Amino acid sequence: MKIPQFHIDKIINTALREDLTYIDTATDLLIPESQVTTGFFLAKDSGILAGIDVACRVFELIDTIESGENITVKKYFKDGDKIKNGDKLAEVTAKTGTLLKAERTALNLLCHMSGIASRTRLFADSVSGTNARIADTRKTLPGLRVLQKYAVTCGGGFNHRFNLSDSAMLKNNHIDACGGIAAAVKVLRAKISHTANIEVEVRDLKELQEAMAVGIKLIMLDNMSVTEMKKAVKLARKHPDLFPDIILEASGNVTLENVREIAETGVDIISVGGLTHSVQAFDVAFRVGC
Amino acid sequence: MKIPQFHIDKIINTALREDLTYIDTATDLLIPESQVTTGFFLAKDSGILAGIDVACRVFELIDTIESGENITVKKYFKDGDKIKNGDKLAEVTAKTGTLLKAERTALNLLCHMSGIASRTRLFADSVSGTNARIADTRKTLPGLRVLQKYAVTCGGGFNHRFNLSDSAMLKNNHIDACGGIAAAVKVLRAKISHTANIEVEVRDLKELQEAMAVGIKLIMLDNMSVTEMKKAVKLARKHPDLFPDIILEASGNVTLENVREIAETGVDIISVGGLTHSVQAFDVAFRVGC
Amino acid sequence: MKIPQFHIDKIINTALREDLTYIDTATDLLIPESQVTTGFFLAKDSGILAGIDVACRVFELIDTIESGENITVKKYFKDGDKIKNGDKLAEVTAKTGTLLKAERTALNLLCHMSGIASRTRLFADSVSGTNARIADTRKTLPGLRVLQKYAVTCGGGFNHRFNLSDSAMLKNNHIDACGGIAAAVKVLRAKISHTANIEVEVRDLKELQEAMAVGIKLIMLDNMSVTEMKKAVKLARKHPDLFPDIILEASGNVTLENVREIAETGVDIISVGGLTHSVQAFDVAFRVGC
Amino acid sequence: MKIPQFHIDKIINTALREDLTYIDTATDLLIPESQVTTGFFLAKDSGILAGIDVACRVFELIDTIESGENITVKKYFKDGDKIKNGDKLAEVTAKTGTLLKAERTALNLLCHMSGIASRTRLFADSVSGTNARIADTRKTLPGLRVLQKYAVTCGGGFNHRFNLSDSAMLKNNHIDACGGIAAAVKVLRAKISHTANIEVEVRDLKELQEAMAVGIKLIMLDNMSVTEMKKAVKLARKHPDLFPDIILEASGNVTLENVREIAETGVDIISVGGLTHSVQAFDVAFRVGC
Amino acid sequence: MKIPQFHIDKIINTALREDLTYIDTATDLLIPESQVTTGFFLAKDSGILAGIDVACRVFELIDTIESGENITVKKYFKDGDKIKNGDKLAEVTAKTGTLLKAERTALNLLCHMSGIASRTRLFADSVSGTNARIADTRKTLPGLRVLQKYAVTCGGGFNHRFNLSDSAMLKNNHIDACGGIAAAVKVLRAKISHTANIEVEVRDLKELQEAMAVGIKLIMLDNMSVTEMKKAVKLARKHPDLFPDIILEASGNVTLENVREIAETGVDIISVGGLTHSVQAFDVAFRVGC
Amino acid sequence: MKIPQFHIDKIINTALREDLTYIDTATDLLIPESQVTTGFFLAKDSGILAGIDVACRVFELIDTIESGENITVKKYFKDGDKIKNGDKLAEVTAKTGTLLKAERTALNLLCHMSGIASRTRLFADSVSGTNARIADTRKTLPGLRVLQKYAVTCGGGFNHRFNLSDSAMLKNNHIDACGGIAAAVKVLRAKISHTANIEVEVRDLKELQEAMAVGIKLIMLDNMSVTEMKKAVKLARKHPDLFPDIILEASGNVTLENVREIAETGVDIISVGGLTHSVQAFDVAFRVGC
Repeated sequence: MKIPQFHIDKIINTALREDLTYIDTATDLLIPESQVTTGFFLAKDSGILAGIDVACRVFELIDTIESGENITVKKYFKDGDKIKNGDKLAEVTAKTGTLLKAERTALNLLCHMSGIASRTRLFADSVSGTNARIADTRKTLPGLRVLQKYAVTCGGGFNHRFNLSDSAMLKNNHIDACGGIAAAVKVLRAKISHTANIEVEVRDLKELQEAMAVGIKLIMLDNMSVTEMKKAVKLARKHPDLFPDIILEASGNVTLENVREIAETGVDIISVGGLTHSVQAFDVAFRVGC
Repeated sequence: MKIPQFHIDKIINTALREDLTYIDTATDLLIPESQVTTGFFLAKDSGILAGIDVACRVFELIDTIESGENITVKKYFKDGDKIKNGDKLAEVTAKTGTLLKAERTALNLLCHMSGIASRTRLFADSVSGTNARIADTRKTLPGLRVLQKYAVTCGGGFNHRFNLSDSAMLKNNHIDACGGIAAAVKVLRAKISHTANIEVEVRDLKELQEAMAVGIKLIMLDNMSVTEMKKAVKLARKHPDLFPDIILEASGNVTLENVREIAETGVDIISVGGLTHSVQAFDVAFRVGC
Repeated sequence: MKIPQFHIDKIINTALREDLTYIDTATDLLIPESQVTTGFFLAKDSGILAGIDVACRVFELIDTIESGENITVKKYFKDGDKIKNGDKLAEVTAKTGTLLKAERTALNLLCHMSGIASRTRLFADSVSGTNARIADTRKTLPGLRVLQKYAVTCGGGFNHRFNLSDSAMLKNNHIDACGGIAAAVKVLRAKISHTANIEVEVRDLKELQEAMAVGIKLIMLDNMSVTEMKKAVKLARKHPDLFPDIILEASGNVTLENVREIAETGVDIISVGGLTHSVQAFDVAFRVGC
Repeated sequence: MKIPQFHIDKIINTALREDLTYIDTATDLLIPESQVTTGFFLAKDSGILAGIDVACRVFELIDTIESGENITVKKYFKDGDKIKNGDKLAEVTAKTGTLLKAERTALNLLCHMSGIASRTRLFADSVSGTNARIADTRKTLPGLRVLQKYAVTCGGGFNHRFNLSDSAMLKNNHIDACGGIAAAVKVLRAKISHTANIEVEVRDLKELQEAMAVGIKLIMLDNMSVTEMKKAVKLARKHPDLFPDIILEASGNVTLENVREIAETGVDIISVGGLTHSVQAFDVAFRVGC
Repeated sequence: MKIPQFHIDKIINTALREDLTYIDTATDLLIPESQVTTGFFLAKDSGILAGIDVACRVFELIDTIESGENITVKKYFKDGDKIKNGDKLAEVTAKTGTLLKAERTALNLLCHMSGIASRTRLFADSVSGTNARIADTRKTLPGLRVLQKYAVTCGGGFNHRFNLSDSAMLKNNHIDACGGIAAAVKVLRAKISHTANIEVEVRDLKELQEAMAVGIKLIMLDNMSVTEMKKAVKLARKHPDLFPDIILEASGNVTLENVREIAETGVDIISVGGLTHSVQAFDVAFRVGC
Repeated sequence: MKIPQFHIDKIINTALREDLTYIDTATDLLIPESQVTTGFFLAKDSGILAGIDVACRVFELIDTIESGENITVKKYFKDGDKIKNGDKLAEVTAKTGTLLKAERTALNLLCHMSGIASRTRLFADSVSGTNARIADTRKTLPGLRVLQKYAVTCGGGFNHRFNLSDSAMLKNNHIDACGGIAAAVKVLRAKISHTANIEVEVRDLKELQEAMAVGIKLIMLDNMSVTEMKKAVKLARKHPDLFPDIILEASGNVTLENVREIAETGVDIISVGGLTHSVQAFDVAFRVGC
């Protein structure tokens, strides 16, 4: 799985433009232009790697002329791998100036993405053995959605819809505007692309039943307690012959503490906003010329 | 203090393009185009507000034609204000479709920025009564630096340099390339803009002394223990007549737990990467049509 | 239904930059700058209108300062309306210079979009009374997809998936790489977002059966003859209890001549590449100062 | 003749961004990343090739890192060549994933451009033996003008002015604003660049005479009947000593049916909006791994 | 005559982004946000005004939200007007912060453009009474061509071709590649748009004759001495019946000292690279709150 | 010292897009596509070279596909070198078409940058032996600041602050808003980043004293006469023990005629707006195929 390179390059370019309005005041005035060194990424914590290709790409993009010529990259791990404190992740040989100018931007990306993957892995491990999958949400940081959603998959999580355009999520505002779930679903089906899914957000068992009654397969249990979720699951699984493919998604206030309990209710998907909206950076250092 | 509007608008536009490749599959097919409603931002936690102008701007930008015509915004708090769970932060009256399409992007920005401000406030409060200021770093998320650094100031923190171009930070790679602090500083002073500051990163008292000896005023104590920092402060403050304006910056592994102790060593600046690289989103809800 | 304004504005700006490298050599040198006139769009043919808001927006964007101030637009029809030769579609009062500079770009957009809507309407009318819906494809013109897909809906057609990212279409290359439909679907389900649909392209009844056997609901009959399609429909509808929601899509070589026959086979969706890849411009004139 | 690569790359990038918001849901989850295959473009109709370099460039741009490394392109025909049903046009060897992700965008460009070239060729052949040249207009599709105008030349057509800035076309609005052709031309000549041509649009013989009388060489016969055109030609050629270089352009409602008749009136240029505003896609298939 | 606003806005935005990476360190921290003042542009020299609309636009663009609301602009002169030391050119009332942030960018544009117009005026006045027009060249500063060429017209100069795409200039490389002027012109005419002019660069009378012999009307006398130019003019005007419309352009090393002499040779156009490649800024001050 | 390549490439791309809206009308229609030639840059004057890498990069960027493949560049001088009339600066071997299309853009950049460097060198040489450094200002041309500031350093000058965001310059508007220098400095210090310098603009000795009294080290003597400057220097150097590091900057109306006299007053920095706002292009020719 590979994010189109043009998405990655655009993000890196934005980052480099932020960091280099003009020259690097220290590096450009002090480091001999022809000096070449090797630097390497060193894990300072244990977790899951994500963004190693992205991080190494920064060194290539910082100086597009030499790109591919002077820069040698050796990667010792790949995205999705378990890494531990002390692991050398990748090695970059390039002009010292290039290493010093790119390092912070590369780390900012790598630490953020690995932070997401590592935390996702904790959630995914917490539900292992159950049916539930951990999914992300649209609670992402502006401009970084492709990287964040990709990092979630590196940690064993699954992607929810990418954006407002690719599938429909009926929330109570939509439902109220149409006078109820059944009415809203009817209107939507009369217009929506046959390739787009419809998910309905329900707040109680009555709404769940309404959604199922009109043939909705994808149902989000919005902020339900574990007890309510159990009832919801029971209801949804009661008549497998009539409702064979119901997918139940638990959403709202999911933490590492309660995720196992939620998974054990039998829901299929547990979506966790915090995977992308509250990221703890994973600690990686970049050592130059050691 | 005001970030140039073009920086903000560019970030919002990037976010909206991520979220709306085409239409909003649910809203565009279900909500009557002329329907107008009021929505409001509701704090679900206590902390410091940052990003309320940015968040409200999203509603204006989502539909540039109507911008300024149909949208009414009332703000009840401003950036930097203390807010608490239950506070109504701002109210937006616009087409229901506009509210529903913009809400997630607005919240993603507002929760991120208020998360930064709130955490910065905790750090700033922790050092209150000491001389120390809390500062951010270049450990920011790609594309979001202007918003993140601004949010730090909303929480009572201070900005470190914005990027590699605006002042010089001598790290050991620079120093080694020149054969020592004195040599590096000499070379740099012969070339650097008279408006750019030079900060030197030192690892021990010997390096601190070297930096002071060549007239450096801005010195970063890199990853020193509290004991070492105390010695460093003592050394730097020993001859106020000879070295009147030394600014000492503590950096590395600063947490809410140890920040007070660090501040009490007498350092001037405590820089905290985590303010921007590990942000806990502040919880805000957007209620439409209630 | 409303395409985000930023998508429309970007297309218009691209068009205006193509057409105005510098000044308008004739208009800028001949027309007094303060002269104001009224111009109007006049239908020269009968069909379905699409793009009237887009076309009128061109006049506003050509001169962003005056936007909203000097320009008065009256629209007599809206997108989706039937129009006939001689209908006055909309009237724009602005500086004569603005009218003359914007007119060609406005017409290029309006004629293209109305051409798509009008032709889609012919297809949609041809299948009226059957179960079949007319859908577009990804065979669109680079940079114009949002406008083209929107115009299809104005003509009574439906949108297929927007792009490669929003749902999965299994073609024989994908299937072969995995060793068959069942294997491919299994691999895909283990990884794909729960909100993304899977459509499988089948070339014969055997493949249709395989796809149904693994629970696929969305099936494209690739380039089948009408006879084959009839058999496919029969097979797919045979056990409504077991396979209740199968959606069959006919694709390949659909023309106005054969679309009714195809619809009558009982397929649900008929996708027509020609709606967007081979567009006959709808004839509209813009009359200035008459 | 070569369109600047940066124009082409921008169009391709726009197209790829439309088609790949995130990953290719099917290809990225199913095709092994290292798998390499060969695909080829296969003509399914007879006509004139245009856009083969543009189409092959898509494969290079989809993944800018590997660009030039892994991709091998063999072209069997070049732009402007006659091709017939069954011709293998070009062969691309690359990662299977790259082939599958790029194929639709490549075809959308190739089929559109070859459609233009093929139709232009029909017009050009229809007037062969006469003096008349077939020319395009500014009735192009937004964002695609460089490709469309280039494709016209591949089919044996000629380019009219590129845009409003490069030469002046006096239409009746310009003329009326100045009080007649002579007055307008006088004003214009007093201001216009000496390198820019002036073309005047005339509606009858009287206006033709007026234009000639003030030394205009380039005259568009606007929507004249064949009979009127004949008279216009006669008038314009009457005094070759006085008016040696008059170029007459026929414009308006030109079809393959009437173009020969128009050419035989003796006009020099016949401009055909339909070459670019109403394009029938040329049928090309892309076969992967066969 | 009006440069499209989108060209101007793009240049201003580029300039503002250069000047404001983040906040204005002084203004944003010191000036109360609500404080409103009036500032004005004051001429400190005598010459020709160009760019007053562009300069005033900067204040509107610096803060797109308030644009059009808080800012009042009064212009006392317009582009092309003679201005003298001490003239108040325009007055802007806006937030003090806006005035201080925009002022440098506004002046950079205004002083540059007025510098061009003023110098062009000197050249134009120097040739007054002769037939010659002063024209610019493609020797412009990257990114500023539209503004520079416009400023030339404000000073009474004329524009040469805008770029490589809008008319053809045959230089000796082109001519040599084809084996002579006659051959090159023949090839070109067989391919070039009927709306594009052909200018030929000649180095001596022989080449001039060759160009005239094949019907070229636009001829550049490349780096000729005044004596040679006189001969060229004589040759070109000898047979007005045969060669009625020859336009001769003098080019190369034109200065204020020699331009009159050149004009008196009888050439039609004198192109001066220095108008745009060596601009002396016109002195304007911006006074805030006086 | 190296400007980030992405800044350079963006400027070149902007320039190329200005110059090539479509094809090069002469070159593309006349020069055989496969023809390869060598061209070289020839100095036509004596001075300091700046921009040779930038100029050579234009040839690579004009055709991004072949970039690095067909183009051979040999540079005989490097930025900062003294060059004299007749020096061959660099040689480029590429397709003739590439040479002809890129040449004007390359020269526009090279002549502008070398013009800046050469003039800066004259200023720098004029003050040699004194303590004074020559510095640039923010009086740059929109979009070209990075290139202009870099060229200043090639000529032996120094950069002033890059923009409004990287250090604070207190002007009288700022000072008045706060009620005096002391008050303004106090407010600013309470908010400003510890890495940002504060420079204060003073108009007389009283203000100088005020600035020194509050510990300001960087002081601009605004438009002072030489006599006043001498007094200012005397005052500032009077108590080196109390005010050891005062840097005095002379600004306003500096010319080659008076710069030595200003330097001899003992000021540290002399900033010269004319280095970048009034540039005399340095004369370089590009010879193709000789």
